[in-house]
Amino acid sequence: VTDLTAVDRALIQHRCVHSRGLGASPGNPGAAPPRLPFSRVTQEDLAFFRTLLPGRTITDPDLLKSSNVDWLKTVEGNSEVLLRPKTTEEVSQILRYCNERNLAVCPQGGNTGLVGGSVPVFDEIILSTSLMKQVITFDNISGILTCQAGCVLENLSNYLEERDFIMPLDLGAKGSCHIGGNVSTNAGGLRLLRYGSLRGTVLGLEVVLADGRILNCLATLRKDNTGYDLKQLFIGSEGTLGVITAVSILCPRKPKAVNVAFLGCSSFQQLLETFQCCRGMLGEILSAFEFLDASCMSLLEKHLKLTNPITESPFYIVIETAGSNATHDEEKLHKFLEEVMTSSLVTDGTVATEATKIKALWSLRERVTEALTHEGYTYKYDISLPVEKIYDLVQDMRGHLGDMAKNVVGYGHVGDGNLHLNITSPSKDPALLAAIEPYVYEWTSKWKGSISAEHGLGLKKRNYIYYSKPSEAVALMGSIKAMLDPKGILNPYKTLPDNIH
Amino acid sequence: VTDLTAVDRALIQHRCVHSRGLGASPGNPGAAPPRLPFSRVTQEDLAFFRTLLPGRTITDPDLLKSSNVDWLKTVEGNSEVLLRPKTTEEVSQILRYCNERNLAVCPQGGNTGLVGGSVPVFDEIILSTSLMKQVITFDNISGILTCQAGCVLENLSNYLEERDFIMPLDLGAKGSCHIGGNVSTNAGGLRLLRYGSLRGTVLGLEVVLADGRILNCLATLRKDNTGYDLKQLFIGSEGTLGVITAVSILCPRKPKAVNVAFLGCSSFQQLLETFQCCRGMLGEILSAFEFLDASCMSLLEKHLKLTNPITESPFYIVIETAGSNATHDEEKLHKFLEEVMTSSLVTDGTVATEATKIKALWSLRERVTEALTHEGYTYKYDISLPVEKIYDLVQDMRGHLGDMAKNVVGYGHVGDGNLHLNITSPSKDPALLAAIEPYVYEWTSKWKGSISAEHGLGLKKRNYIYYSKPSEAVALMGSIKAMLDPKGILNPYKTLPDNIH
Repeated sequence: VTDLTAVDRALIQHRCVHSRGLGASPGNPGAAPPRLPFSRVTQEDLAFFRTLLPGRTITDPDLLKSSNVDWLKTVEGNSEVLLRPKTTEEVSQILRYCNERNLAVCPQGGNTGLVGGSVPVFDEIILSTSLMKQVITFDNISGILTCQAGCVLENLSNYLEERDFIMPLDLGAKGSCHIGGNVSTNAGGLRLLRYGSLRGTVLGLEVVLADGRILNCLATLRKDNTGYDLKQLFIGSEGTLGVITAVSILCPRKPKAVNVAFLGCSSFQQLLETFQCCRGMLGEILSAFEFLDASCMSLLEKHLKLTNPITESPFYIVIETAGSNATHDEEKLHKFLEEVMTSSLVTDGTVATEATKIKALWSLRERVTEALTHEGYTYKYDISLPVEKIYDLVQDMRGHLGDMAKNVVGYGHVGDGNLHLNITSPSKDPALLAAIEPYVYEWTSKWKGSISAEHGLGLKKRNYIYYSKPSEAVALMGSIKAMLDPKGILNPYKTLPDNIH
Repeated sequence: VTDLTAVDRALIQHRCVHSRGLGASPGNPGAAPPRLPFSRVTQEDLAFFRTLLPGRTITDPDLLKSSNVDWLKTVEGNSEVLLRPKTTEEVSQILRYCNERNLAVCPQGGNTGLVGGSVPVFDEIILSTSLMKQVITFDNISGILTCQAGCVLENLSNYLEERDFIMPLDLGAKGSCHIGGNVSTNAGGLRLLRYGSLRGTVLGLEVVLADGRILNCLATLRKDNTGYDLKQLFIGSEGTLGVITAVSILCPRKPKAVNVAFLGCSSFQQLLETFQCCRGMLGEILSAFEFLDASCMSLLEKHLKLTNPITESPFYIVIETAGSNATHDEEKLHKFLEEVMTSSLVTDGTVATEATKIKALWSLRERVTEALTHEGYTYKYDISLPVEKIYDLVQDMRGHLGDMAKNVVGYGHVGDGNLHLNITSPSKDPALLAAIEPYVYEWTSKWKGSISAEHGLGLKKRNYIYYSKPSEAVALMGSIKAMLDPKGILNPYKTLPDNIH
């Protein structure tokens, strides 16, 4: 099944087993390790917070409930206090205090993460960015937006659209997720193919370090080569190295024309050929190339009552074009569609140019995650692979699991070589999990893929890091963590494997 | 002249003066600090290197000469040994040995840097990547190229063009510069406007750390969120944190159609309006928007005998389009030109679609640097600013310097807000330098610009870092340096200011 040599496998498993720590459930390296010896929150601490944040220090268990559990309801913590600062200075004072008192802190944005990275594991103090929602500046010549970390992505999108710009990222959770959380996760999403990753579009960050120091790297320049690019440390580090309090980001002009095509293919090979043809013929106007399989479509129909707008097919593609000339774009799209229909790469399709219909077609892709939540329990995997390999994993997994799984579905970002593999079960099932893991990670490692393309490692995936990164790299990550957060108070139990903490 | 408050100025100058160290020439913080107490190369060391690298351990002073001096001939070192490894393993053995022996090392690529970052300051061992020139893999589906660090940029471009792809970066020095050096510098160049910075396009790096450890982060995936993105530490850190030995990079498809327009404008304001109009009308096919002023044109005519293809103008623009449909692109370009000519934003212009003529038009922009070298001594500044401010600096500098300078010229990347300000003099002139600096840095700091947009800090600019970065950020850079290279053997005297070493 896999070409990992016996030695490779033994080495990786040794590191993974070792990294589980003594207390983790031996069958489930995604479970929490034992609580680390942080201080407990005292009445004196609460008094300090209440003075600093009057009316914004939440201790009511009912109000805390939704912040203690992740969106998927798979991970739940027991935090007894939620802090809602409005300013960077307040975040700085909170962290300085917590660091001195050895109190652990879980930074939280919109809490839409999928790997248990944004909720406390034990009684960590929740530091929420929900009241940090001010746009600071927007320059409509350069397209550079600077805002506080708690701005909701969709609100920023609306703000920009009124000014003829768009955000360089878009994702299904846009109605809830915060830009600070997006950056902490290094979220990918639906526009990465066109506008690139946040590592290129984020121009500056303001970050509060574990000891309360404010690091102002909030540049608003496209180019700046004065020393090491410190902001990159905080992009994608899931709040373990600092709390992002403000972001500056380069926003593209709003395209004058947008078209969306929803197409059906009878095999994944044909889908890949359609992708190659599409890149050649749509070129610079291609802004997304996404897919879902027939199992996803069934779940959309069953649980969300969405309607499949085309003939039933094994695979569906969502293609978006965005450009500056509607006539040219339509001509390119038309020629492309003619080519793929006459060559029978595509069996059926529909095109939308009008906003409501565009939104309806996009929802077939964006709402797959939501449809899956109605299935019971979902084991979620977010895998990068060479694009020609991505669906082989779904098929091999189906064969491997047989009747054990209720559903094995695949969807994701073809243009980025990013598969979302989801396996559902009526409820949590340790035997199923044991059949999936480490199989899925070994499979990915064999093809030099990444075991987390865009979701991050959080709590759930932290101990699998060795499948994608060599020990030297993980050890260096540990040194960086120790340098920036020597007491380990920032988002403990996340990102780094247990043998590094 | 500047709005820096007296307190700001005093603070920055205090840090800059402090950072010069005791031995630096007090009037010239770009000069070298005293030699640090590294070991001297002994006969025993040479014997070790000759065994490791037979025939590739160069000690002949004549052969060493060109590696001891920078391209601009402004900085010269006294290294007595140049090592030419072919493999990562050899680089690892060299560094492990040097680290144990406390020997300083200057990593060198094509030696085309403009800030004295790629030549030794004293007797550092030169570690050249010139024999590490193998392409490792190229995937013509994903466009991901993996190669050794010493590949010359132009060779990679030619390799890719045969396969219908292009490199995501292009710069004047392409015939000599190495991709490893480009990445170490975080080079910007002529295509950044379209394809973004190396922070987005570089997907993986292999790096040898100061103690010889090999860090393999040579991923070939568009997305990978498994832990901290370590490779970012080495992009733009000028060889001070590790030696890059291999690079994987995402390459765009070769555009089917390329057009270049060379236009004249009678004021910088009109040039800016042309830029705004261009972004709207050329949109996704715009791949470069560059400018030079009339003084640059005079130098091209005088020193390189190039011919101005259009009517004399105060400002010249080079616009490049790159797209997938020649007819559409020409139509967009034609409409744009019609608009800017009829509205008199542009006074004259010429367009090229044929390769030789495109090359000729581009050389008017690319060869400005070369033309300047014929003027005597050139003081070079590479400044990021809000785009509407970039030429004000040239004009203010002209007023400020009066007759002291032979020429004050401006050119650069309008699309990136990046000005190359160059001030020439028949020979080195300390009085002129004292009039330029810190004036130019204060001016830049006042507008929240960067004192190095794309050239890096190297030796020459290291002590000016505080004009663009707060002390907390510089201190953190120092901690990272200390963590990765505790003995400071890698490219000493570069990037970090003297008070951090």
